[in-house]
Order: sequence, then structure tokens, then C-alpha cells
Amino acid sequence: MATLERTIERIGLPDQTARAKARARLDRLIMPHWALGRLMDLAVDLAGITGQVPPRVDRKVIVTMAGDHGVVAEGVSLYPQAVTAQMVKGFVSGRAAVNALARLNRASVVVVDMGVAADLGRLAAQGRIITGRVAAGTQSIARGPAMTLQQARRAVEAGIEVAEELGPQTDVFGTGDMGIGNTTPSAAIAAVVTGAAVEEVTGRGTGIDDRRLAHKMAVVRRAIERNRPNPADGLDVLAKVGGFEIGGIAGLILGAAAQRKPVLVDGFISTAGALIAHCLAPKVRHCLIAAHRSQENGHGRMQRHLGLTPLLDLGMRLGEGTGAALAMNLVEAAARIVTEVATFEEASVSRAES
Amino acid sequence: MATLERTIERIGLPDQTARAKARARLDRLIMPHWALGRLMDLAVDLAGITGQVPPRVDRKVIVTMAGDHGVVAEGVSLYPQAVTAQMVKGFVSGRAAVNALARLNRASVVVVDMGVAADLGRLAAQGRIITGRVAAGTQSIARGPAMTLQQARRAVEAGIEVAEELGPQTDVFGTGDMGIGNTTPSAAIAAVVTGAAVEEVTGRGTGIDDRRLAHKMAVVRRAIERNRPNPADGLDVLAKVGGFEIGGIAGLILGAAAQRKPVLVDGFISTAGALIAHCLAPKVRHCLIAAHRSQENGHGRMQRHLGLTPLLDLGMRLGEGTGAALAMNLVEAAARIVTEVATFEEASVSRAES
Repeated sequence: MATLERTIERIGLPDQTARAKARARLDRLIMPHWALGRLMDLAVDLAGITGQVPPRVDRKVIVTMAGDHGVVAEGVSLYPQAVTAQMVKGFVSGRAAVNALARLNRASVVVVDMGVAADLGRLAAQGRIITGRVAAGTQSIARGPAMTLQQARRAVEAGIEVAEELGPQTDVFGTGDMGIGNTTPSAAIAAVVTGAAVEEVTGRGTGIDDRRLAHKMAVVRRAIERNRPNPADGLDVLAKVGGFEIGGIAGLILGAAAQRKPVLVDGFISTAGALIAHCLAPKVRHCLIAAHRSQENGHGRMQRHLGLTPLLDLGMRLGEGTGAALAMNLVEAAARIVTEVATFEEASVSRAES
Repeated sequence: MATLERTIERIGLPDQTARAKARARLDRLIMPHWALGRLMDLAVDLAGITGQVPPRVDRKVIVTMAGDHGVVAEGVSLYPQAVTAQMVKGFVSGRAAVNALARLNRASVVVVDMGVAADLGRLAAQGRIITGRVAAGTQSIARGPAMTLQQARRAVEAGIEVAEELGPQTDVFGTGDMGIGNTTPSAAIAAVVTGAAVEEVTGRGTGIDDRRLAHKMAVVRRAIERNRPNPADGLDVLAKVGGFEIGGIAGLILGAAAQRKPVLVDGFISTAGALIAHCLAPKVRHCLIAAHRSQENGHGRMQRHLGLTPLLDLGMRLGEGTGAALAMNLVEAAARIVTEVATFEEASVSRAES
């Protein structure tokens, strides 16, 4: 069986015994019942995903997937394509925002070249990035499919392989992306998979003005009309209107879920990757934690489609894995509560009247 | 001049030069403009509060103020009064939720006895808690004033003294509270100061049912009618419908602001303390950071009155300083961005078209 199908087959359901065990302890902590709200819900989810009580979340890795997009030729972004490779070098040097936030929360950042339109061979040879490289950027989705079906499968399987390679040293994954132009394919994926109108899920990306936003919406609409992706077929959607790093993120999610490891999903592009993963294997849903609500138009619609409520909402719209790096602290907080807070019995604190 | 008046006089306005300098650097970081949203706003605020670029936020202290409330005799809480002292012992042993969250974010927890109805002398003698003790609990606000005007001043000045004592080792303060029954005086303060209806700012506290909630609202209404606090006079409001730990929190805020140190305001009770501080010295406003939106009814109304937008919204309703401990991570993230992320020039990354 191929890597993709074998991985999907391994994805299970939440461990209800672990969930019940976590809940039973949290019910008795020295505080009014469930007074830490979503932090406690998250602790139960982490137990269910991992099958562990307490869930282990110490070893945190943000995987930042990079790729280029032929659609930038249509003028959908403010930045030149060269910025994708420049930012990869920024991640490697530790001076990008995701590095700062990951350092703060004791997570490592792993950068994967999924298809940057530049030669990153030296960084790969030095072991400073992982290569999951499918090709030097996608084709323009406004003119035809982004990639072939084989390339789509290759991108997803490369993501799975990254999850498998990192798995033995990782308790929690965070997703991240870099790719000039990648809000355009992500908007197309969002429209196709959720059924939302293009205007509802197409935003300003790096900060385009009204005129260019209208143009970007037209490009997304044209990409969907020209390619007619099948919303029931994740690989078809990815091939026709996706991107290599988006496929890599989808694969990372599938690979993590197959290992029963939680995945903190970052922003707009990462959630497009999650939509693809969810198309391919609906059971991944229970391994996903939405790190934050991006300011990018349509992110909420995508999260609702997946049934996810974001942890943070700080008007961020950067990607890279910055939201995931920041939300790692909440994941760790949730896990710590399970063990580090005493129960009423342990602490001899009087309980509420019943 | 008395401690209170002397402290209020020292509270200044934001340092506009530091704000501009922080903004100038953040404007040039390698990302679409202001793509980290509120984290960047917060970084500018921290620069303005402290007058430092980068703002220093390494040494983080959560101050958990404890006190008891005569109004528990009216049956407003599910828990017996003894829990206040039991929880103080929990904080000291490091097994409460605030300890777990503070440890995660490398903040220390300092517990202050502002007026617990139990003998905590041994913990104070051992130096494990600070004593700011005004009396062994307040009087019932349903029957008369909570405390005398002298006691109200004493509580606020004790909080100022704690801020002064901790100041030399503290970059950022977080507030916290413990006091069975203290959502009742906090609701009364909220109604008086914001002008909101009692029903709008009175919530379920530790988790009371509808019948008891109606009773609690009646108690709050009676407390206001009987005492007629003057909303323009912070000490009068505190004396008539407040609590010792609420006064301590108000004082801590004033003392921190006088030292140009940011204060992360925790939940419902801490925000009641902030309302008192704001009545006494409106300029404290710019030193306040709202850690989170509590699930307690009316918290949003209080925050809007102060012009604060909370960083987190996770359905928490515990107090202790748990929200402040959690949000410390965001404060640190904001400060780190100023220094740890490269500018376009430093990283040789291409800028957007202008």
C-alpha cells in the first residue's frame, strides 16, 4: 500500500478511556468546577489524542513548509517571489518572528523546502532545512492546474515523511507556512471545500488594497472555474488549486494523526492544508487544535467547517507558524494543569455544597 | 503627604518617544506591515509604559491578594469561608492553578494576606506570605459598609507598599485574588462605577444556580441602596461595598503605575480593583493590560469602562491570577518581537511594492 493510504488507515479515534480519566481528575481540582474553561477542555482533548494521562507535550516542534506559486505572475501579492527563499534563510538564521515566538515557548522550528523557486540545496546539504521538494514552484492556477496529481500525492507524502522523521523526538506538532502568493490558492481551497463564496474567503494577504483584492477574487474565481476541482477528492483539489507547502502541511497533519500526536494548526494557509487533510481522512479532525483566528478574511469560515474554535484571536495574519508557536504555551498550560494542580482531597480544601 | 496621595502624584503619562521608537522598529520587521496585530500594539504599549525600547519584561510577578467577606453570611457563595485560608495554603505549597501557570511562564507568585478570617501568622512569620492585613474579613455590605474609610485607605496603601517592596525585582506585575464571596462586592463596585444595572454585572461566581443568583443580585442591590457609595470617590466605593483584597489590588496597580511598570489585570475581582484604582487616579489606565475576558457576567462591561480589550478569552472564571499568569506569555512575546526579529535591512529581505 502507498504511504498515503497506509497513513490514513492508521488514523484512529480519540481514546475515550484517557479522556474519561483526564476528566475525572480535572473534576476534582481545587477550584470551582471546570473554572479554567477551555484550558480544561483542551487537556481532555490532549488526553484523547495521545491516549496519555497526563498527556505529554514537552517536545514541541513547529514545521514551517515553504513553497512558491505560479499564480504570483497574475499580480495577487505585494511581494516579489524572491521573498519566499529570503524568508527561508531568515528562519534558518533564527531572526524571523516564528523563531522568536518558538524560542519563547521552547519549541524548535523545522523548515521544509516543499518547492521554493530558488536553489536551497546548500541549506539542505548542511542539514539546516529538510527537502520535500516537489518542483520549483507551482503553475498558475488561473491558467490550469497548480500541479499534476502525482505531484499532489508527492507533496502530501513528503509531509507524512517529515512527520515520521520528526515523530520520535516530538510530542506536539505545530504547522507553519511560507510562500509568497499562498493566500490565493488557500482561498480557492477554502471556497471549494467549504462551499463558501469566493468573496467570503478571499482576503488581503500581505496587505493589498481594494483594487487588487477585487483582482485577486477574480483570479480565485477563474482558478475554480477553469480547473473544476472535486471537493470530495482532497488530492484533486490540491493538484488543481493548491500549492506544494499546502500539500506538505496536509501530509504533516495526516502523519502526526497517524502517530496520535496533536497538531496545532496555524493560520489561513495551514487551515487550507487541514481542509485537504480532512478531505482525505475525516478522522484527523480530532487531532487538530486551532491555534488562532487569523485576521485574513474567511479563516473563521474554514475553522467552522472543521468544527474548530481557535484558542487565540489577536489580529495576526503572518503565517510562518507564529500562531502555533504562540498557542504552544496554552497547550502546555492545559497539560500541566492535569498534574500540577492538587485535588480537593490532596490539598484538604473544603468542597462546595452539593 | 500620605502614601496614597504621594503615589498618585507620581503616576505619569505614556512615554511618547519610547512608543515612537518601538513603532519605528516594528514598522520595519521582516513581515507584512503590522502582521502580528495586537502583539505589536502591545509591544508599543509596553515601551510607552516602561519608557524602554526594548521594554524589559523578564522578571514577572503575580501578586495574589487574599481577603474574606462578611457578605458570605448572606449565602452568596457555594463555598465556606474557610476555603480562603485553605487556598492561601495551597498557593504557598505551589499546588494551585496559579502556581502551575506561573511556573510555566517563569513568573513568581507572591501571596498577600489582606484580611483573611483565619490566623495566617505562621506563614507570615516564615516569610511565605506578605501581610497587608487590615482586619479578619469585612463586614457584610448588605447590612452596612464593608469597612471604615480608614481601613479602605489602609488596604490601598498596603497594596502600594507591596508594589514598592517588590518593585526592584519586578519588571511586570500580574494581579490575582482569593476570597470566598468576592464576586459579590466586585459586582457592586462594577455597578456603582460603570453605572451598569446590577443584573448586568452580577454573575454565578463559583457556580451558583438561578435561585441563588437572583438572591445574590438582591444582595448587591441592597448593598448599593443601603450604602449609597459615591462613584466619583474610589475610597468611598471601596469602603462601602468593597473588600480588603480588592483594595490591595487597587493599591498594587497604583504602586506599579507610579514605578512605570505594566500591570496585567486578571479577571472579575482584579478588574474591580482596577476600577477603584482608576477612580483614584485615571492616569493608571495606560499601565493596565487586560489579561483575559472572564466568563463571569459583567466582566466585559468593566473592561469597556476602562477602555481595555482582553488578550485571552478562554472561558476562565477562577481568579487567583491564573489569567494574568497565562497572559504573561503574550507580554513576553510582544517584548521579544522588538529585539529578536530582524528588519528588512538587517536580513536583506525585499520589501513590498510601495
